[in-house]
Amino acid sequence: MIVDCAAYADGQRCNDGPMEIDHALERAADDDAFVWIGLHEPTEQEFAAVSSEFHLHELAVEDAIHAHQRPKLELYGDTIFVVLKTARYVDSQEIIELGEILIFLGEDFIVTVRHGEATGLHDLREQVESDKEMLKHGPAGVLHAIVDKVVDDYGPALEGLDEDVAEVEDEVFSESSTNRAERIYRLKREVLQFLKASTPLSEPMQRLAHREHPLVPEEVRAYFRDVTDHLARVQDQLEGYRDLLTSVLEANLSQVGVRQNEDMRKISAWVAIAAVPTMIAGVYGMNFEHMPELGWTYGYPAIVGLMLLVCGTLFRTFKKSGWL
Amino acid sequence: MIVDCAAYADGQRCNDGPMEIDHALERAADDDAFVWIGLHEPTEQEFAAVSSEFHLHELAVEDAIHAHQRPKLELYGDTIFVVLKTARYVDSQEIIELGEILIFLGEDFIVTVRHGEATGLHDLREQVESDKEMLKHGPAGVLHAIVDKVVDDYGPALEGLDEDVAEVEDEVFSESSTNRAERIYRLKREVLQFLKASTPLSEPMQRLAHREHPLVPEEVRAYFRDVTDHLARVQDQLEGYRDLLTSVLEANLSQVGVRQNEDMRKISAWVAIAAVPTMIAGVYGMNFEHMPELGWTYGYPAIVGLMLLVCGTLFRTFKKSGWL
Amino acid sequence: MIVDCAAYADGQRCNDGPMEIDHALERAADDDAFVWIGLHEPTEQEFAAVSSEFHLHELAVEDAIHAHQRPKLELYGDTIFVVLKTARYVDSQEIIELGEILIFLGEDFIVTVRHGEATGLHDLREQVESDKEMLKHGPAGVLHAIVDKVVDDYGPALEGLDEDVAEVEDEVFSESSTNRAERIYRLKREVLQFLKASTPLSEPMQRLAHREHPLVPEEVRAYFRDVTDHLARVQDQLEGYRDLLTSVLEANLSQVGVRQNEDMRKISAWVAIAAVPTMIAGVYGMNFEHMPELGWTYGYPAIVGLMLLVCGTLFRTFKKSGWL
Amino acid sequence: MIVDCAAYADGQRCNDGPMEIDHALERAADDDAFVWIGLHEPTEQEFAAVSSEFHLHELAVEDAIHAHQRPKLELYGDTIFVVLKTARYVDSQEIIELGEILIFLGEDFIVTVRHGEATGLHDLREQVESDKEMLKHGPAGVLHAIVDKVVDDYGPALEGLDEDVAEVEDEVFSESSTNRAERIYRLKREVLQFLKASTPLSEPMQRLAHREHPLVPEEVRAYFRDVTDHLARVQDQLEGYRDLLTSVLEANLSQVGVRQNEDMRKISAWVAIAAVPTMIAGVYGMNFEHMPELGWTYGYPAIVGLMLLVCGTLFRTFKKSGWL
Amino acid sequence: MIVDCAAYADGQRCNDGPMEIDHALERAADDDAFVWIGLHEPTEQEFAAVSSEFHLHELAVEDAIHAHQRPKLELYGDTIFVVLKTARYVDSQEIIELGEILIFLGEDFIVTVRHGEATGLHDLREQVESDKEMLKHGPAGVLHAIVDKVVDDYGPALEGLDEDVAEVEDEVFSESSTNRAERIYRLKREVLQFLKASTPLSEPMQRLAHREHPLVPEEVRAYFRDVTDHLARVQDQLEGYRDLLTSVLEANLSQVGVRQNEDMRKISAWVAIAAVPTMIAGVYGMNFEHMPELGWTYGYPAIVGLMLLVCGTLFRTFKKSGWL
Repeated sequence: MIVDCAAYADGQRCNDGPMEIDHALERAADDDAFVWIGLHEPTEQEFAAVSSEFHLHELAVEDAIHAHQRPKLELYGDTIFVVLKTARYVDSQEIIELGEILIFLGEDFIVTVRHGEATGLHDLREQVESDKEMLKHGPAGVLHAIVDKVVDDYGPALEGLDEDVAEVEDEVFSESSTNRAERIYRLKREVLQFLKASTPLSEPMQRLAHREHPLVPEEVRAYFRDVTDHLARVQDQLEGYRDLLTSVLEANLSQVGVRQNEDMRKISAWVAIAAVPTMIAGVYGMNFEHMPELGWTYGYPAIVGLMLLVCGTLFRTFKKSGWL
Repeated sequence: MIVDCAAYADGQRCNDGPMEIDHALERAADDDAFVWIGLHEPTEQEFAAVSSEFHLHELAVEDAIHAHQRPKLELYGDTIFVVLKTARYVDSQEIIELGEILIFLGEDFIVTVRHGEATGLHDLREQVESDKEMLKHGPAGVLHAIVDKVVDDYGPALEGLDEDVAEVEDEVFSESSTNRAERIYRLKREVLQFLKASTPLSEPMQRLAHREHPLVPEEVRAYFRDVTDHLARVQDQLEGYRDLLTSVLEANLSQVGVRQNEDMRKISAWVAIAAVPTMIAGVYGMNFEHMPELGWTYGYPAIVGLMLLVCGTLFRTFKKSGWL
Repeated sequence: MIVDCAAYADGQRCNDGPMEIDHALERAADDDAFVWIGLHEPTEQEFAAVSSEFHLHELAVEDAIHAHQRPKLELYGDTIFVVLKTARYVDSQEIIELGEILIFLGEDFIVTVRHGEATGLHDLREQVESDKEMLKHGPAGVLHAIVDKVVDDYGPALEGLDEDVAEVEDEVFSESSTNRAERIYRLKREVLQFLKASTPLSEPMQRLAHREHPLVPEEVRAYFRDVTDHLARVQDQLEGYRDLLTSVLEANLSQVGVRQNEDMRKISAWVAIAAVPTMIAGVYGMNFEHMPELGWTYGYPAIVGLMLLVCGTLFRTFKKSGWL
Repeated sequence: MIVDCAAYADGQRCNDGPMEIDHALERAADDDAFVWIGLHEPTEQEFAAVSSEFHLHELAVEDAIHAHQRPKLELYGDTIFVVLKTARYVDSQEIIELGEILIFLGEDFIVTVRHGEATGLHDLREQVESDKEMLKHGPAGVLHAIVDKVVDDYGPALEGLDEDVAEVEDEVFSESSTNRAERIYRLKREVLQFLKASTPLSEPMQRLAHREHPLVPEEVRAYFRDVTDHLARVQDQLEGYRDLLTSVLEANLSQVGVRQNEDMRKISAWVAIAAVPTMIAGVYGMNFEHMPELGWTYGYPAIVGLMLLVCGTLFRTFKKSGWL
Repeated sequence: MIVDCAAYADGQRCNDGPMEIDHALERAADDDAFVWIGLHEPTEQEFAAVSSEFHLHELAVEDAIHAHQRPKLELYGDTIFVVLKTARYVDSQEIIELGEILIFLGEDFIVTVRHGEATGLHDLREQVESDKEMLKHGPAGVLHAIVDKVVDDYGPALEGLDEDVAEVEDEVFSESSTNRAERIYRLKREVLQFLKASTPLSEPMQRLAHREHPLVPEEVRAYFRDVTDHLARVQDQLEGYRDLLTSVLEANLSQVGVRQNEDMRKISAWVAIAAVPTMIAGVYGMNFEHMPELGWTYGYPAIVGLMLLVCGTLFRTFKKSGWL
């Protein structure tokens, strides 16, 4: 689906609503003007017109339609092809929802293809259109704006993860100490997936920031350096979570084990306490003819008193050892 | 066994059925023509004719006959020697079945040697023959087609693994929580084996994609870059599985331990409950002459009632603590 | 908040109290003079004057106001932008408190922006002002003094960690052997955070030490090499703690498990000892008509003696096996 | 001990039996001829003659006599000094027995020094002597033959390990599930030792294969590339074993734990079953005067029946839960 | 404290006892002569004379007095500054005792500063003085002699560790299987500390061996290469120990756990055996009026026989399952 299509010149949008692609191209034929076409999960047919117009490489086009790529930046002749992964944290399910944005960048055009719902580009376009300076940098300026937005959107996703990691930590070390293995494992899984979506982007951004490329003007490069820096922080955090979750999984095992063992010890201690009067009663339940105690007037209360005494002593001893 | 042998010129197969090798070679002596010989687990004798014809290096020939190589790309003079590992997931046994394809590439010939059953090349040859463009790139075009097919075939193998990993996860965190250590271990073993078969291919593909080599035309290089990218995704996935399976193995240990401890706690709690009436009964089984309760008319039901009361209280307490 | 502002020339402060920024700048227009402006958590408005005066890059300005950066060094045109993380160990809570210092360095100015409380720069300024040699090196000399102070302040933080790690080790291997999982985990968390704050600083310091930069005079470079060396030691230590804490967490699990098992064994052994007289008593509590022992005069004491003998033997056996 | 000494010219051995060193050297003074001296654990005295003759560097000589080196390749002036580790699997003890071969290579001589018994060089010499082509490459040809043999001999050692790893896996996951920790640990230890013996060889072999050196003719280089490839496979395997053994050690812990817990659960379940009739019997062993059931004609069989019923029900319940 | 000070020329010591520094310097003003000053934990005052004489850099001087550096090599103008860590194994405490040697090397002087007791330099000086060849290489020859000695001294420390690691292994897998967690952990801690003291030395030694430096003559370089090789072996070993100790810690946990579980199983089995006669006795202790067995003449011995039979059978069954 073609979401929007417009030509930009002198840092301004040339038309109000979406333009026909043909008109936009005509308009962009001028110096310093460029076209920005935005697509959302296009069919092969929808994309064919665009790709033939800009001579996009067949391999990149295939990637753009089928998505599920790794983040990357490829050069096909004069065209730059960039794949980005968007991320959104769905708190109710504790999962990272990934989307994909694919970008074709030429001298006077930029084509953006979006898959999945995570990050919309509509607001971004409005924002870019209001920033004359950025628009003047041409397609590279738009590229930076998109990459910056995608990486900025990693922030809230990280915060979502952060909260859940903190929550799970508290649960593991709380008094109740129920088994949190599954939740920890699922969180770790999300962290690994997020890492896979963000880490490979680092290298291409660095290339944009440090190597000369005719499509990326000198003054835009510093902005890509800034993106690189953001990405490095995202990775630092994610790798931190991975480490922490691994440790928490181990700690969880230990906490649950300790707690269960305490329960067992408590039950066993009670059984041990009960075993003593049973034993004493057994002795006085024997049928010997000559057991003088049995004839005593206060034999019974004395023995019951003995039982209580022994049990009480045991109870106090166990209490002191922390077994009860 | 020689499976097929044909000469190709101007993007077309020159003969319908398999040709004699000699005829094919004569035909390929022309400009722009080349021979494609396909072999399946050839004996030393069968291979001798081919290797002497194309002056293949003795070390490469030895590798080609005995197989069990690592994926690699070697240059012997003007010949490129490539080793590929094919992979197929046998779901019934949950194993990755590996095969091997060895390729000799010269200016006007390509010799493919297949070991094992995993990936057949017959369909591929038909497909290549129908793609005039690729054929026009000569042996390098065929090489790409084969590598591309092999790496594409990793896809279904990965999906098979993915399903089994998800299955094992669900089993581990399910209520029943039986011990899944063996299955997890076997899966991990397969993942490691798959990694060993695919990871080393990355470097040679990158060399084909980025360095100039007279046998690989400029326009084919982008295609090898695409293969590199596919391989990177395969590795990302496999390393993800390795990480996850390691965590699942730990989680499994914890889950099974927790479950077994719960069982023990339950049994012990019941034993503890039974110990109380036994103790009380023991007391009234004592043979003291002076035990006033024994003479009471309602002594027996009162004591039985007491037993039931104590047991009931214990039962409720244990239930509340989650021990029963 | 502007904390201090002064111009320096010939290794001396030109004014006693804080100067107006404008005056300072006029003064610094001379050769060899420079301005040092110190800010503490400035608002956007407060910073605007400074940043426009020195033509600071908008990206760096944004970083300076919002803080929460990774340690880094960036070049924006003729300006060097450095981000440092300060660290302080709060022993009562066993946490590393991080602060941030951001520095803009130009030919004749240095602007320092401090966030958080960890490391104050007031004492440092006095110290720098009393060191004529360093001041003569201009802004780069001041930069070194700050970086040196920040890295030196890592020392006490490390010592704090060191003590707590040693403490936790002793606790884990002590007789009492209570569960220390949470404390170990929290310490590890702090170590990871500290690593994240200090490790990335290494690379920029090395760049200052080894690459030529017009703002950093030859003779100052050796000092940055020294800082690099300090940082390497800090990292060695932190990575050591990470390793040790991981091992301690494991050892803790093992120690607690062993201790709890010992308790269980002890209780079970006592239950086993009690089971024997209960069994014997049970036998002589049977109501058979023909049980000759029951009629013996010394049957009762003999049997009680037997019980004591058996229990005593069991007790000694268990003692010898280390079960009691 | 001097094992053999011979001069070779035109791809042929010049003498049948061992020659005197002096004669051999005279013979080798001719063009294209070279000497091969084979030593086995030489004393300092035995080696002095050789080392002074060929001006071997004192550091290399020291290494050659005392052995226990890492695999390495060093250049001392015009002499190449190579250290190789041989490996042999002693199945009865499940250990890797390491030996050492040290080689001095000059323009017209090769001196081999062998320590330990693992790989003999006698058969190898015969084999080399029968391969005229290789001999024509001079000392470098012999060097390749030795390295190739040493690395080839890693194969059987790996197979031995492979079998034992597979065996230990089967044991761990078998029904009997006895504790295999020691065996796994010992195997891992051997794997680590083997890795240490083989991994460092990789880098020098790559240097021989890729960099020009006057002593290694162009056409021999491809053969060293082949050795590199073999070594890479050996390492892949060993690292695979290391990974697997780590996982097996964990799985073993889990398997043994699970099995032992099952035993405990079974015993406890039986104790629980026995507790019920004991309790019922206790009740009817009480001495109350008014217990109507005691007077019933069928009271006894009814109660015994009740006991059997309860025990049977418990038994079936436990069986269903998998506790028995 | 100044330990010794002497001038050397033509491979000989110029004076017998320690010289005054001033005299030594005069003497060293000649060509080819140099001074070697040996200090032990000097005070700032003691060191001031030396450092001003040779124009040592203030940063290096600071390091030399306060010690606790990482091993490193720095160039300050024409002076080389080297920091070495000495290691000694104190077997009684199972710890690695680290010392420090700091060396300043100029064209005609070498200053050695020793901290801690580990490695004395007195014997070394005598040894160097008796080796004319080495002395002729000037300060660089002395530097090599010291480094070589320090690294050689790592050998006995490694052997000490090796023995203790082997001992702990045997203990863990022995029959008695007491908990060795603390000892293993302490050993690992020492290994990590040793690694930290030796690993960073590798890189500077390689620089001395491979890069040209005016103070290090060509023929001395090979000797530093040898040191590099030694260091590599030390690291291989230490990393091996680290790996092994990690595995042993895990194995220890498993061994102790298994052993304790066996104890528990044994105790539980005995309790289970005792439960059976208790139950039977309970049945015949019931007070029913109609229990025909009670009247039988041989009822009592028959029941006791039954008890023995059941217990015997249980005993044999448990024995067979390996529970007793």
